[in-house]
Amino acid sequence: MKPRFAFSISATDGAARAGVIAMQRGEIRTPAFMPVGTAATVKAMRPAEVRAAGADIILGNTYHLMLRPTAERMARFGGLHKFMGWDRPILTDSGGYQVMSLSALTKQSEEGVAFKSHLDGSRHMLTPERSMEIQRLLGSDIVMAFDECPPAGVDARRAEASMERSMRWAARSRAGFDAGEEHAARSALFGIQQGSLDEKLRARSAATLIDIGFDGYAIGGLAVGEGQAAMFGVLDFAPAQLPADRPRYLMGVGKPDDLVGAVARGVDMFDCVLPTRSGRNGQAFTWDGPLNIRNAKFADDQEPLDASCGCPVCTIWSRGYLHHLVRAGEMLGAMLMTQHNIHFYQDLMQAMRDAITTGRFAAFRSDFAARYRRA
Amino acid sequence: MKPRFAFSISATDGAARAGVIAMQRGEIRTPAFMPVGTAATVKAMRPAEVRAAGADIILGNTYHLMLRPTAERMARFGGLHKFMGWDRPILTDSGGYQVMSLSALTKQSEEGVAFKSHLDGSRHMLTPERSMEIQRLLGSDIVMAFDECPPAGVDARRAEASMERSMRWAARSRAGFDAGEEHAARSALFGIQQGSLDEKLRARSAATLIDIGFDGYAIGGLAVGEGQAAMFGVLDFAPAQLPADRPRYLMGVGKPDDLVGAVARGVDMFDCVLPTRSGRNGQAFTWDGPLNIRNAKFADDQEPLDASCGCPVCTIWSRGYLHHLVRAGEMLGAMLMTQHNIHFYQDLMQAMRDAITTGRFAAFRSDFAARYRRA
Repeated sequence: MKPRFAFSISATDGAARAGVIAMQRGEIRTPAFMPVGTAATVKAMRPAEVRAAGADIILGNTYHLMLRPTAERMARFGGLHKFMGWDRPILTDSGGYQVMSLSALTKQSEEGVAFKSHLDGSRHMLTPERSMEIQRLLGSDIVMAFDECPPAGVDARRAEASMERSMRWAARSRAGFDAGEEHAARSALFGIQQGSLDEKLRARSAATLIDIGFDGYAIGGLAVGEGQAAMFGVLDFAPAQLPADRPRYLMGVGKPDDLVGAVARGVDMFDCVLPTRSGRNGQAFTWDGPLNIRNAKFADDQEPLDASCGCPVCTIWSRGYLHHLVRAGEMLGAMLMTQHNIHFYQDLMQAMRDAITTGRFAAFRSDFAARYRRA
Repeated sequence: MKPRFAFSISATDGAARAGVIAMQRGEIRTPAFMPVGTAATVKAMRPAEVRAAGADIILGNTYHLMLRPTAERMARFGGLHKFMGWDRPILTDSGGYQVMSLSALTKQSEEGVAFKSHLDGSRHMLTPERSMEIQRLLGSDIVMAFDECPPAGVDARRAEASMERSMRWAARSRAGFDAGEEHAARSALFGIQQGSLDEKLRARSAATLIDIGFDGYAIGGLAVGEGQAAMFGVLDFAPAQLPADRPRYLMGVGKPDDLVGAVARGVDMFDCVLPTRSGRNGQAFTWDGPLNIRNAKFADDQEPLDASCGCPVCTIWSRGYLHHLVRAGEMLGAMLMTQHNIHFYQDLMQAMRDAITTGRFAAFRSDFAARYRRA
């Protein structure tokens, strides 16, 4: 019988870890990158194409899905997996971050967040309990605790108050999730560490979460504008504050060089809209760094996006063709650029898993840094 | 060795014919529907998906391609097939129709059409000779003669003058094509019958084209706003004016019921943007008629677009999911709606080929008409 949630680390190399999370709907190889499927679709990609790129798990957004098509409708369709045609694990966020960044007229209280939909102005309330209910209705495999994510640069007092509220919400999330019975018996719940850039606050947050007990632990409140140096500064201490035998998930990260630096510091899971959003905007990721395919210099370029890439796009089409498609506003341009980027991110994760497994992660990291030119 | 161009009719049923055109790049089963790949892409579809839907041949547009990415650039890439990754036959139009409908400040003369690009205002000239050169640079398999397509409702005098100019241009197209040597030795040239709705003008046009001699004959100047009844009126006599042993191609047509009525009247080939454009606009074709997936009644509909359709979309996704995607403006919505429509059109052609081959086309046509509700 498949386990509900079992994380095994098969190799470590410095702080970096390679392993597998076994769940009812399949295995997740770590370090893992989760493509973002905001509105029940990884934009411009069919599920089979996402899987063929190497993804073991995708992410869905509670905030978007609760507004459209709504969690209750999704449940009538048999859940998010059946609705969108993806049968492997899905992690759903709690809606806490997006409700603050996307909706209008939010009103926060100890109870939760009241807000108006950015789509039609309708009124809604997100609480830890409602977030757990929505994620259960979606049929999520990895449920995220409902939390508050303060912006970068808040003062120490606000950072502390926000972290403490998130910890109270984490306990309510745990209780709400556990009340889910059948769903709780086949899915997992992750807590989210907060505390801005402050080591002591993050230590207190971690201790509180560990006391409540979760299947995995996310590092929240980063990638909100603090910059890579500050983020790495936190990652120099935050992963070690979390249990070594549980997956560590860095939310909303990031660029390829962010991923390499975070894996080196002990992070196991990531999600980010960058490969999909950049793809739609004409940016392709390569082992030499990102390139903007709209640039006129690519009009006559008969080489693939990345000569060392084995993805279906690089196997068939040239930079010149992609340049033409993107310049002409053709949907196929966004489709192929996205497909390449999703493949590139998965190839990057596979390369890191291989390097950790064979004990040469330091060399991989150094080779990567020498070749990869950040935009 | 594969023939340059060999059309064989394997079955007839009334005026309807089923057959195969054998060419260097593959066989084209007729009656054939050619998906339109305007700008070196069938919009929102990868070539492999177009092929999997059953298409033997696609259409490219000379007017669009000469402006972007330009015929000369395409030639540097090894031609349109290699550029876009489609290795089967491609028919290219001559640019004559689109230059008049899309470009600004056109100036027609006996020589050809001078115009400004709708993209950047640059000045260009299309003549029969230049059109042949462009189609050769693209590496087209079926080249269309350069012609003038008058709008519906022109007076008899203008219809006659326009037809006669098109016939002079047809002779120049033949000479221009034949000068192509290596390309002419492996591709085919079609003439285009004009003459508006007038039987005598069309008879004269056909006789002139036959005298020049072409591999196939298109019926031009229809589907320009005259309506289905007037179009069928012309198709009651036009196909018989053209050689029985050559393919007859009705340009720019059409709706599913147009195709059935035209095949019944002896047409072998079609092209139209309808399945792709409608798909992007949320319209799906089914055996019961078109449906608009944006309609609120589909929000909770768990059935596929067409219960009798075996396409990859109907196999996996519900109307409710497609409704969600299209309403949310998700690219995957346009991708899947287009894919279904392209499959539906190819299934319709296959059903007609089967019906003709088994001598039950009249029954097919009657069953189709009884079930298919036009929008």
